[in-house]
Amino acid sequence: MKSDIEIAQEATLKPINTIATDLGLDLDDWEPYGHTKAKLSEHLLDKLKDRPEGKVILVTSINPTPAGEGKSTVTVGLGQALNRIGKKSVIALREPSLGPVMGIKGGAAGGGFSQILPMEDINLHFTGDLHAITTANNALSAIIDNHIHRGNELNIDPRRIEWKRVMDMNDRALRQIVVGLGGPLRGVPREDGFNISVASEIMAVLCLSTSINDLKARLSRMVVGYTYDEQPITVKDLKVEGALTLLLKEAIKPNLVQTIENTPAIVHGGPFANIAHGCNSVLATKTAAKLGEYVVTEGGFGADLGAEKFLDIKTRAGDIDTAAVVIVATVRALKMHGGMAKAELKQENVEALKAGMENLKKHIETIETFGLPFVVAINKFPSDTKAETDFISNWCESRGFEVALTDVFAHGGEGGIELAQKVVEKANTSDKNFKRIYELDESLETKIRKVAQQVYGADDIELSPKAKKQITLYEELGWGKLAICMAKTQYSLSDDPTLLGRPRDFTINIRELRPSIGAGFIVVLTGDVMTMPGLPKEPAALKMDVSEDGKAVGLF
Amino acid sequence: MKSDIEIAQEATLKPINTIATDLGLDLDDWEPYGHTKAKLSEHLLDKLKDRPEGKVILVTSINPTPAGEGKSTVTVGLGQALNRIGKKSVIALREPSLGPVMGIKGGAAGGGFSQILPMEDINLHFTGDLHAITTANNALSAIIDNHIHRGNELNIDPRRIEWKRVMDMNDRALRQIVVGLGGPLRGVPREDGFNISVASEIMAVLCLSTSINDLKARLSRMVVGYTYDEQPITVKDLKVEGALTLLLKEAIKPNLVQTIENTPAIVHGGPFANIAHGCNSVLATKTAAKLGEYVVTEGGFGADLGAEKFLDIKTRAGDIDTAAVVIVATVRALKMHGGMAKAELKQENVEALKAGMENLKKHIETIETFGLPFVVAINKFPSDTKAETDFISNWCESRGFEVALTDVFAHGGEGGIELAQKVVEKANTSDKNFKRIYELDESLETKIRKVAQQVYGADDIELSPKAKKQITLYEELGWGKLAICMAKTQYSLSDDPTLLGRPRDFTINIRELRPSIGAGFIVVLTGDVMTMPGLPKEPAALKMDVSEDGKAVGLF
Repeated sequence: MKSDIEIAQEATLKPINTIATDLGLDLDDWEPYGHTKAKLSEHLLDKLKDRPEGKVILVTSINPTPAGEGKSTVTVGLGQALNRIGKKSVIALREPSLGPVMGIKGGAAGGGFSQILPMEDINLHFTGDLHAITTANNALSAIIDNHIHRGNELNIDPRRIEWKRVMDMNDRALRQIVVGLGGPLRGVPREDGFNISVASEIMAVLCLSTSINDLKARLSRMVVGYTYDEQPITVKDLKVEGALTLLLKEAIKPNLVQTIENTPAIVHGGPFANIAHGCNSVLATKTAAKLGEYVVTEGGFGADLGAEKFLDIKTRAGDIDTAAVVIVATVRALKMHGGMAKAELKQENVEALKAGMENLKKHIETIETFGLPFVVAINKFPSDTKAETDFISNWCESRGFEVALTDVFAHGGEGGIELAQKVVEKANTSDKNFKRIYELDESLETKIRKVAQQVYGADDIELSPKAKKQITLYEELGWGKLAICMAKTQYSLSDDPTLLGRPRDFTINIRELRPSIGAGFIVVLTGDVMTMPGLPKEPAALKMDVSEDGKAVGLF
Repeated sequence: MKSDIEIAQEATLKPINTIATDLGLDLDDWEPYGHTKAKLSEHLLDKLKDRPEGKVILVTSINPTPAGEGKSTVTVGLGQALNRIGKKSVIALREPSLGPVMGIKGGAAGGGFSQILPMEDINLHFTGDLHAITTANNALSAIIDNHIHRGNELNIDPRRIEWKRVMDMNDRALRQIVVGLGGPLRGVPREDGFNISVASEIMAVLCLSTSINDLKARLSRMVVGYTYDEQPITVKDLKVEGALTLLLKEAIKPNLVQTIENTPAIVHGGPFANIAHGCNSVLATKTAAKLGEYVVTEGGFGADLGAEKFLDIKTRAGDIDTAAVVIVATVRALKMHGGMAKAELKQENVEALKAGMENLKKHIETIETFGLPFVVAINKFPSDTKAETDFISNWCESRGFEVALTDVFAHGGEGGIELAQKVVEKANTSDKNFKRIYELDESLETKIRKVAQQVYGADDIELSPKAKKQITLYEELGWGKLAICMAKTQYSLSDDPTLLGRPRDFTINIRELRPSIGAGFIVVLTGDVMTMPGLPKEPAALKMDVSEDGKAVGLF
């Protein structure tokens, strides 16, 4: 089979003008960025406010293998399949971070015949949103250090600055640094570090904002550190909410592109799925809902993280109604959950598969807890055998769960027709009783416990002394009514990445909390969380090039 | 008078499609970036190769005051004026760095009624070129540190890494830092620092490249540091020239915009004028020359730096023929050179002016040494008196120098008609005998001495022990035949910023050299050079905002 980039470069893209016109957009509703990308006007959503809302379909998955289960590919494929069965669909996806692209071969724009295009642009600089976020983040850092250097009127404690610099790069040497060395002309020395740009709170803020005014208000509230008296310092105290908003005024506009089958896709924002909520922007999803009968979107990692945060954080911030959920499962991940070694996952093993079904079962229960209709999608890989995929189908059917075998990677929308039909049926059922896991006015501890018990299946939580102290402090500071954003390993339902399948009789250990006041949540850290990746021994960058005729080479 | 941004926001821009069509461009010669910006195809120059070349007019100036003498404004105004007298002109300018925009109020896109538009975009993220350069620079840094962390096969000495990280920000705390702290998972500790992005050698490389293949070849040659055996390590050794080229494949395409009077402007690249050559890209200037009868372009700082580097470095790399030079002088700068204090420059003082003419005289001699025809442009400021501007005009005329009073800031192209007429006359004179200051095959020391003596008027140069050692080493390494790029204060013809007017009997002290092998020059440092600016006590960012209807506020 051809590589993703070969398939992408052979595709025939429609001019973005055609895609926009087919969506009913006027010329002043969008701006072109090249011939196949556009930014949608900040006025569009307001203009469309009286239109009916399309049905939002959330694509989530079981706990993945390190290679991922093809959630983005299924999202794109399902969007294409819906179009094929006559339903006007719009896909809403995250935009990829450039840093990891330089590291490990593997795109973030779908795959095979279910990709969003132009994949080279989308995976590299795209329309510059990530760069704008990086710039706004680092402008704030420069302002903080300049404030301290110029007399520190606000009494900021340089040891208690929580705001880190960011870069859209996998660069481990920047994880822990000392800045301001070299004497009085070079600022005030202090410890600092860089996160990857998608871990910036500004990314989460941009993705949860419902307008440019909301963006500015959220930016104002961001806490960057504390004074010597341990009082929080906000962006508003530093008076740069206007400048940060100005730096983001183009980045907040959703990007319109298309899939390999010319299905419209709005690709916008990409917050980390651990210290942030891991979904594309509220504006993208809401705009897609105004433009299509169906919106297909996704949440990062498995349902324990991605779906929970989509439903408890994003749909709350954006007032989004979720019509149905697709739970992506793969033969290989289920076999891994059933105890097979990663190196052997290509071998048929129905027994391991059977043992691994427990993982899928728990995620199904979680979606049932949320009261949402769902379809299980088996995302087919070439090594899957019929006995294996049949086993999953039979397992689901015998329990009354809708299931569809999909092969959208190899066959595009055609490979997702059955899934599309079942999704339409579920999205139009009256059998829906949506409720969130927690209410905002519950205590932080209660909210954390509810997620741990109802979503992860834990017996209880255990708070470290530091976490306990932080909860007390945060509730005193008035932050107790915010949502919680769990940072947990994606590989296990528990906080131990080696506990596969469906762990039982475990406790979730809460190490520490971090305030993301602009985003509107408290990040809850269980174990170590990596916010700046590193490069592997042989980075993907070593294979990259540009051909004589200006085409990208070696990019996936 | 209205502010620059008010004038800019009241201007009527033509769709970029109209600007491109009026230039005779086909639809596949360019790509839109919004409705008023475009990127020109990498194939355009090749397509136009049989067209005649327009005449290139270089705008330079006397040694400036810290506020600058309005060289960009005159460049834009002259382009507009040429159009008004029926000459098809295209302006070629540098693109601004975002960092300083956050610091000190003042744009880099012309001023008043001689601006390039949309000025908000051009001064902020524009088409992302600066961000792409930042990313490529920092990808290389990440690759270097990763290489050392992963076993250091190339034997790179972490104490001898010359390649710094960059950020498009005024951030003094990043001038001197330590990276790689925190143990084995966080890389190998070493000293590092950030430069502002425009100081990246990649910016100079991009601006001197004549094609994407030339870009890749230049990137390959860049020296990033030395081994423990003191052998240079290049990008080619690290095998990332392809990846860096891929990251720059859009950034190398020149950007097309327009002025406030709808004159086409190609705005592309903006290397530092001290450690680099300070001109817009070769591709921009060459493309402009294929599209217009006249190209108006500029070099950074005064003629001692900007014109010398334009003529000795840029025109050599790009095989550009310069038709005539405009030397911008202002009453206030000449009075400063005549001994007036900065705070008093608004007061009439013909005596000081007279004393200051020596500075202009030396720059005229330099342009005569280059054998190029020139016109002196007096760039009018509101505080200038008729006695003062008359004095300069008479001084020039009595010596046979062409001179024109211009007021393009207040009156746009109309204010530059006389200048345009005189420039056309000079550009078509047969009285031209262009020769460069040095030949490439002369020794580094000879090249430096020639510039110091012939351009600065120094008696001689004095090499520090370090510089002497470096010259020997560089010539051994085969770098002796490269051009030289002088880094010197812009305020004086000498290396002492306090020596105004026309200093005599002085020596230029050469502190150290730095190789820019990809750019194709050796940087020669005289005194301290700032490669990462800081923010002032009250950064311009504090006044910035976005209005309810999405417009930039407080940006100049």
